[in-house]
Amino acid sequence: MVDQKIYTASTTAPVNIAVIKYWGKRDTALNLPTNSSLSVTLSQKDLRTHTTASCSASFESDTLHLNGELQNISGPRQTACFRELRSLRAALEAADPSLPKLSTYKLHIVSENNFPTAAGLASSAAGFAALVRAIADLYELPQNPTELSRIARQGSGSACRSLFGGYVAWEQGEKIDGSDSLAVEIAPASHWPDMKAAILVVSAAKKGVSSTSGMQATVATSSLFPHRARVVVPQRMEEMIKAIKERDFETFADLTMKDSNSFHSVCLDTSPPIFYMNDVSKAAIRVVEELNRVSGRKIAAYTFDAGPNAVIYYLEKDEALVLGVLKGGLEHVPGFAVSGTAAIPEEYDASFLEPLKEGITRVILTGVGEGPISVKESLVGEDGLLLKK
Amino acid sequence: MVDQKIYTASTTAPVNIAVIKYWGKRDTALNLPTNSSLSVTLSQKDLRTHTTASCSASFESDTLHLNGELQNISGPRQTACFRELRSLRAALEAADPSLPKLSTYKLHIVSENNFPTAAGLASSAAGFAALVRAIADLYELPQNPTELSRIARQGSGSACRSLFGGYVAWEQGEKIDGSDSLAVEIAPASHWPDMKAAILVVSAAKKGVSSTSGMQATVATSSLFPHRARVVVPQRMEEMIKAIKERDFETFADLTMKDSNSFHSVCLDTSPPIFYMNDVSKAAIRVVEELNRVSGRKIAAYTFDAGPNAVIYYLEKDEALVLGVLKGGLEHVPGFAVSGTAAIPEEYDASFLEPLKEGITRVILTGVGEGPISVKESLVGEDGLLLKK
Repeated sequence: MVDQKIYTASTTAPVNIAVIKYWGKRDTALNLPTNSSLSVTLSQKDLRTHTTASCSASFESDTLHLNGELQNISGPRQTACFRELRSLRAALEAADPSLPKLSTYKLHIVSENNFPTAAGLASSAAGFAALVRAIADLYELPQNPTELSRIARQGSGSACRSLFGGYVAWEQGEKIDGSDSLAVEIAPASHWPDMKAAILVVSAAKKGVSSTSGMQATVATSSLFPHRARVVVPQRMEEMIKAIKERDFETFADLTMKDSNSFHSVCLDTSPPIFYMNDVSKAAIRVVEELNRVSGRKIAAYTFDAGPNAVIYYLEKDEALVLGVLKGGLEHVPGFAVSGTAAIPEEYDASFLEPLKEGITRVILTGVGEGPISVKESLVGEDGLLLKK
Repeated sequence: MVDQKIYTASTTAPVNIAVIKYWGKRDTALNLPTNSSLSVTLSQKDLRTHTTASCSASFESDTLHLNGELQNISGPRQTACFRELRSLRAALEAADPSLPKLSTYKLHIVSENNFPTAAGLASSAAGFAALVRAIADLYELPQNPTELSRIARQGSGSACRSLFGGYVAWEQGEKIDGSDSLAVEIAPASHWPDMKAAILVVSAAKKGVSSTSGMQATVATSSLFPHRARVVVPQRMEEMIKAIKERDFETFADLTMKDSNSFHSVCLDTSPPIFYMNDVSKAAIRVVEELNRVSGRKIAAYTFDAGPNAVIYYLEKDEALVLGVLKGGLEHVPGFAVSGTAAIPEEYDASFLEPLKEGITRVILTGVGEGPISVKESLVGEDGLLLKK
């Protein structure tokens, strides 16, 4: 008699925002990068993907639902993750014949984000990290997060960093098969828990160039890019790791802003040029630079991914001042519900705040957080189908 | 008895727009650059400075009027030009005692631009080129334009290129005293006379960082800049000179756009980042990139100096098409009076033209032109004062 049991495992996984940017692949199939990168994992209270992985001999095909919608999973990215995870499970089953043959069953995956998928909020990183973590839990795989990061990377490069909380490096590796291109924890969230992040969501008229095609165009055409990848980033990685270990926010901020600008520089140096930041993004840069100028020290750091949204890092001790300044431009923007802020310093040029009033559509106030968390709540019902809400 | 005669010489000098950009000084006093650059001299029919240099034993002090306003000439830039030119005249006088001692007389200089000075149209280049050329003519100096370029460079770096018409390189030189940092003619205007330029003047809310302070901030802080100056530009200079000699517009266009983007990349890589282009500038880039895409060849090339204005180079044979497309966004903009344009190609994405409608305040349609021209019309009256108009 065939085993009709439905096996499930559920997890949540976080978004991460890089402070040393991933841009450029040396192998597009394996998502092997041209330089190492480093990110801060953000709190799942504000941004997370919740995923349930289930399998059963009774399932007829692999499926993935995201926010209630059936997704196409025939692409090489999803296929690679499923194949690699099944292969690890099959090895367990071969070593212990008493184990159920989950590796041969079809998978039903159900995912939900607690934030808008398309807002340019690194949803694919959280999504693939949750997918890999949930299936690994379903299969009871013994591999640690670094070992699993090799698989998540093949789904979406930056997803490998979302398998850890806190401060996470993705080491580029050197091997052709990518087996040494892995995520490692530089420091847990508890090492430097007072790191805060304000995400300023910028309304963009049009979606820009996708990061996948954008980074390949940069690799192919930018004459400044090789210098960034080979010379600038390796040195910056070392300095950033040291800054995080020493909880040196000024250096962290300086490197974060420099690396964001360096990444957007090589985008501009691409033919045709790629622009992810717009005039509102630039206004956010000026707001932060002016804040640091009048403060006489770096108390905030902006960074921009492949889109116009600003992420501003700062420490909890400076929150009243940072949010007090931002309040001048963001007071009525959804998500900016704060109290106990400081007044804008007298010498501050508040004209820099003006473009934010019209240009920012939403604010998310969050901070550093934990890696994937195993949860009880299943998104798959007892019938093996997604639960309707 | 003292010679009361008023000696005068008048010249006009052109604007030039670089296609390989000057950005970064290795010596700020002498205006010695960190890389060579190359420009196209634009026609004086549309953009020129007219300057009369006069001197007399009866003049009591050196003066400079620009557009009717007395200028401060105590700065090191003006002082250097006056000193160097007087020194060359003094050498002539020492060799031939019959010459009047003009080197000992005070100078009255009067200049007028036929375009708005502050619109970011490279007025300082034309201004210092006209100043040096007019005084050299007044002093009857035997030095050729390359020799005079050493002096004009000390007034304003890019002014050295405005001493020639056509296609002009400024060779960076290696010597500490700057004696080999000179402008040379790559090809006269007559070599490739069908080069056209459309200048799109963008309204900028605020004047950005001055190029003098901006380039020094880039040299001091950008980690991509040394690679641009040492590796990228030297190779690009060679390719550009070859393209001009061979009248190869596609290569000319490709290098022009790449070098403009490279220059703005190292501005963005500066701490704090420098932005000269705004969203309207970027729209102009997209308009040109789209035109080249649908044309299947590079028929136009954009370039941006230290400001938001776009300069678009194209050949006369493509004028109907280039202006036909631009007409879709610029028809009602002052200066855009054209006839006989082609229709916008069907596959062209005309939405790229929308931001130009509000963002461009003026258009100047011009082309490659001649170097400084000696003229009869004097801006100084018989009393040694500026002529009132």
